[in-house]
Amino acid sequence: MGNRQLHNPPLVCVISGDDAAPEVMRPTVEILRELAPEIRFTEAPCGREAQAQYGTPFPDVTREAIDAADCTLFGASGGPSRPILWYLRWNKETYINVRPVRWIPGYNSPMQHPERIDYVIARDNLEGMYPPREGDVSELAALPSSSSWWMAPPVEKVGAYSIKVSTDEQMQRVANHACELALQRQAAGYPGRVTLGAKYSIQPRTDGRFRTIVKDTVSQHPSLTYQEFLVDDMARRLVASPESLDVVVLGNEHGDILADVSSGTIGGLGLSPSACYGEDYAYFEPVHGSAPDLAGKGIINPTAMLLSGALLLDYLGYNKQARALTSAIEQTYQEGTLLPVDQGGQAGTNEFVRAIRAHLPRHE
Amino acid sequence: MGNRQLHNPPLVCVISGDDAAPEVMRPTVEILRELAPEIRFTEAPCGREAQAQYGTPFPDVTREAIDAADCTLFGASGGPSRPILWYLRWNKETYINVRPVRWIPGYNSPMQHPERIDYVIARDNLEGMYPPREGDVSELAALPSSSSWWMAPPVEKVGAYSIKVSTDEQMQRVANHACELALQRQAAGYPGRVTLGAKYSIQPRTDGRFRTIVKDTVSQHPSLTYQEFLVDDMARRLVASPESLDVVVLGNEHGDILADVSSGTIGGLGLSPSACYGEDYAYFEPVHGSAPDLAGKGIINPTAMLLSGALLLDYLGYNKQARALTSAIEQTYQEGTLLPVDQGGQAGTNEFVRAIRAHLPRHE
Repeated sequence: MGNRQLHNPPLVCVISGDDAAPEVMRPTVEILRELAPEIRFTEAPCGREAQAQYGTPFPDVTREAIDAADCTLFGASGGPSRPILWYLRWNKETYINVRPVRWIPGYNSPMQHPERIDYVIARDNLEGMYPPREGDVSELAALPSSSSWWMAPPVEKVGAYSIKVSTDEQMQRVANHACELALQRQAAGYPGRVTLGAKYSIQPRTDGRFRTIVKDTVSQHPSLTYQEFLVDDMARRLVASPESLDVVVLGNEHGDILADVSSGTIGGLGLSPSACYGEDYAYFEPVHGSAPDLAGKGIINPTAMLLSGALLLDYLGYNKQARALTSAIEQTYQEGTLLPVDQGGQAGTNEFVRAIRAHLPRHE
Repeated sequence: MGNRQLHNPPLVCVISGDDAAPEVMRPTVEILRELAPEIRFTEAPCGREAQAQYGTPFPDVTREAIDAADCTLFGASGGPSRPILWYLRWNKETYINVRPVRWIPGYNSPMQHPERIDYVIARDNLEGMYPPREGDVSELAALPSSSSWWMAPPVEKVGAYSIKVSTDEQMQRVANHACELALQRQAAGYPGRVTLGAKYSIQPRTDGRFRTIVKDTVSQHPSLTYQEFLVDDMARRLVASPESLDVVVLGNEHGDILADVSSGTIGGLGLSPSACYGEDYAYFEPVHGSAPDLAGKGIINPTAMLLSGALLLDYLGYNKQARALTSAIEQTYQEGTLLPVDQGGQAGTNEFVRAIRAHLPRHE
């Protein structure tokens, strides 16, 4: 998607992230190298290590490595590496966050029927409530619209505001991407259904406008169908009726929250990959955080990182290799003889990675 | 809670609501009358019926009936009755929305282990993203703080903003009520744990301030313990580890979304009651909407409305009667011979209500 021109061979910037994140990054890069030996990987320093060496958690060499690459594989931020993530998001304008949500037999789901869960969340990655724009509530009197509101803001009280922003341009990009995703999935046998979740009943100018844009965009694709729910009802449906979902479109904060609910339904954050796409850049990261409590224990689940690696392979056109990696992960879970600790098993990170590697195609 | 003085005998305003809501209101009021014959009920017109008779969905007689009563029992709004709900919320300053979330054997939960679900959500009912305060994004240049933001708002683009507001006063009231609830529950054997969900990492001035206030307030009660999660992680925990929850404190929109996830985990909106408390007023309503698709079919599940009635009885001091009603509902579900349609059974509203009534104590 987008108008990107890839290097030949492609160049990937690797940023390991904080705390326990490097423990899953290392084996993931090894496996990606094995699957597609021609891809070039450059590792860039970040977080505490960069702080020690360069006096900043986000040194110029890292920014340059990001800029020089086709895309970035990112571990997870525990705080120190957050400026890098913000650069990847807002400076590289990776406008959409895509999170596939699919249960695989062997995942330790808390649901009675997790086999119904197979959809994708497409979430605004740039606007809404993030980045934060806050101030003192007394300032709100300066807004021309404030006189027309049903209820005046409490400008005389001690308090703060936070701003949610929605531009037509960004909502349209998100809508376009969601439709592209739905068409791609439809070609693979999915129903071609785009489902919007937003608070259009209460926020007509932001969420109501988002609704109009997504609905109109879907209607331009005759093979796709459109569905909408208030975001609270949408959240409930992730639990109650996930089988009706194909591509779910959400605003930034709503997507942040609902995607974690989705992760909960399949068995946890350790299983959830994500990809953020822009017109000419992309980055890939597991949904989970940097797990400081697990750092050094060798038990962090590498699945989300590996599946993020599979999304990266897809982005670079290595679709066959992406399928091979995904399939090796699926087989390992289906066998169920070795499972990571967070899935009720006892396998450490390395042991579990070895089991997955045993299911990868051998080199000629 | 609060400083309320009740009438003697108490006076309840009944507002049936729109669409299918009157079908569950009618039997609920009948049962409440049976359980506590001295309570006086005044029915006030609303929605389409009021529109036809008075030329407005919210006539003066209804406002007067609300004001005269100790509290209001509200059906559900399908749109026409929304102004009444807004009056009950913002004019009567019912600052907190309390939603008990408890699975009862017989509820058709999609979870593998719903028996772990037994907590209460305490949600800001007045601020945050509601009521809506929206305008054109170009206006944001007028905000003094805007020059200090990490990223300037895109004032040159076509777009809109929406404002989230948090005052110290309201956050403090919510924190106080959550602690009172936790203490009450602790007296009944619960762990006395208050869990905050908010986006304090990204929104320090609003959600970060909420975190400080809730944390400080809990610390003033030595028997209570405090726990906090980012709201996305909190949402996941409703699905993944509900057994660790006792009283969950959330902002307005976050609570709106997460409470629906909770409803999904126990078996649906048809089972979820709510209460909104102010200093000297309260109203009670089921979490579900007015179910226009079910109107006239006689199959809407009365459980949420009846349980909201039980919360009303508690508020008025009829705790024994509240327990009797709750217990009759539990027994009916546990028997499982008659279940409402949305719980996988075939019982219509009236038939299910009859089954519940058979478990109520006989009058002397």
